Amino acid sequence: MRKLEIIVKPEKLEAVKEILEECEANGVMISNIMGYGNQKGYTKMYRGTKYNVNLLPKVKVETVIPKEMAKTIIDKIVSEINTGNYGDGKIFVYDVEDAVRIRTGEHGQEAL
Amino acid sequence: MRKLEIIVKPEKLEAVKEILEECEANGVMISNIMGYGNQKGYTKMYRGTKYNVNLLPKVKVETVIPKEMAKTIIDKIVSEINTGNYGDGKIFVYDVEDAVRIRTGEHGQEAL
Amino acid sequence: MRKLEIIVKPEKLEAVKEILEECEANGVMISNIMGYGNQKGYTKMYRGTKYNVNLLPKVKVETVIPKEMAKTIIDKIVSEINTGNYGDGKIFVYDVEDAVRIRTGEHGQEAL
Ligand SMILES: Nc1ncnc2c1ncn2[C@@H]1O[C@H](COP(=O)(O)OP(=O)(O)OP(=O)(O)O)[C@@H](O)[C@H]1O
Ligand SMILES: Nc1ncnc2c1ncn2[C@@H]1O[C@H](COP(=O)(O)OP(=O)(O)OP(=O)(O)O)[C@@H](O)[C@H]1O
Ligand SMILES: Nc1ncnc2c1ncn2[C@@H]1O[C@H](COP(=O)(O)OP(=O)(O)OP(=O)(O)O)[C@@H](O)[C@H]1O
Ligand SMILES: [Mg+2]
Ligand SMILES: [Mg+2]
Ligand SMILES: [Mg+2]
Repeated sequence: MRKLEIIVKPEKLEAVKEILEECEANGVMISNIMGYGNQKGYTKMYRGTKYNVNLLPKVKVETVIPKEMAKTIIDKIVSEINTGNYGDGKIFVYDVEDAVRIRTGEHGQEAL
Repeated sequence: MRKLEIIVKPEKLEAVKEILEECEANGVMISNIMGYGNQKGYTKMYRGTKYNVNLLPKVKVETVIPKEMAKTIIDKIVSEINTGNYGDGKIFVYDVEDAVRIRTGEHGQEAL
Repeated sequence: MRKLEIIVKPEKLEAVKEILEECEANGVMISNIMGYGNQKGYTKMYRGTKYNVNLLPKVKVETVIPKEMAKTIIDKIVSEINTGNYGDGKIFVYDVEDAVRIRTGEHGQEAL
């Protein structure tokens, strides 16, 4: 199994959720984070003054899926979420040793 | 070492913490998330109207433990948290490469 | 690639961010969590009454980096964040299978 950790702008949350549902990912964990990527924040104008915005609000969507679903989901996110602008987001992929459904005690892919 | 990522209903947080203390897990990280599992949310009645609740508030409890403690903790959570109803929660298990205690600079299991 | 998960007191966030920038880590995800470590909380006095504080607010800083940068960053955090007091914090290290930049579709270290 794999965990995809998908970090996007908050306004992209609905689009990511739709992609995950279309791809039949079975569950998600969503949290609000603050972050920066390669641009390390940027400069903003507010009432005539420039100031540095170092941390931006982002949404983190995590989903645990069978290994063979990862490529399809990643490719679909890249093609549908990509605007060509900085800050479109990142996907990190991790290995998952086991999953357990508490209701039934099932382990592994059965538990997804 | 292993990380257990335990996702349960907020009202189960105290029970999970108690199990972890009984099992002598040495630490926890707790965060509030929103999520859905296999049922992808459900339908709720509010003032006579049905509407779809897609994301539910959940609590995520993470604990990093020696590998050989994982089974005991998982089994205890399954047997004590399980109500037989949908939405009892999930446990995901990850491998942990290293742990470091910042106060002492210790690495590995000594640092747990 | 590796993920460092750095848990510190909220007042240490700026110091951790500075270390990560000096070490040229390319991005961070920051979240607020509640936690306890080995001391399982502690006893506090409030208006003459002792009570147990079991969960303390902490900040979690996650950064995904090339494997060979991990040691430098960890050593710098240990030497600069360490006060010698309990609760200085923890670093957990995980393997990362892949990283993807959504804007470009790049994979792997190129995407960091
Ligand atoms: N190396 C990293 N480690 C941890 N989190 C990261 C990393 N890179 C990006 N992130 C997270 O992803 C969010 C979005 O990053 P972003 O899309 O700006 O990536 P980027 O590499 O800068 O790509 P781009 O050049 O297209 O902006 C960041 O705000 C941060 O929370
Ligand atoms: N595959 C998954 N990936 C990521 N998070 C998940 C996944 N499955 C469940 N979760 C998280 O766990 C929470 C609880 O899930 P839940 O107990 O409903 O799992 P389930 O598989 O639907 O089991 P049940 O059929 O017993 O309800 C969800 O709200 C979600 O945050
Ligand atoms: N084994 C663990 N699993 C998960 N989270 C942990 C673990 N140990 C510590 N943490 C997290 O790190 C935070 C800081 O821990 P802390 O610095 O108190 O570690 P410690 O092992 O008790 O070291 P010290 O003895 O120096 O206090 C905790 O509040 C908790 O959120
Ligand atoms: Mg960027
Ligand atoms: Mg469910
Ligand atoms: Mg401690």
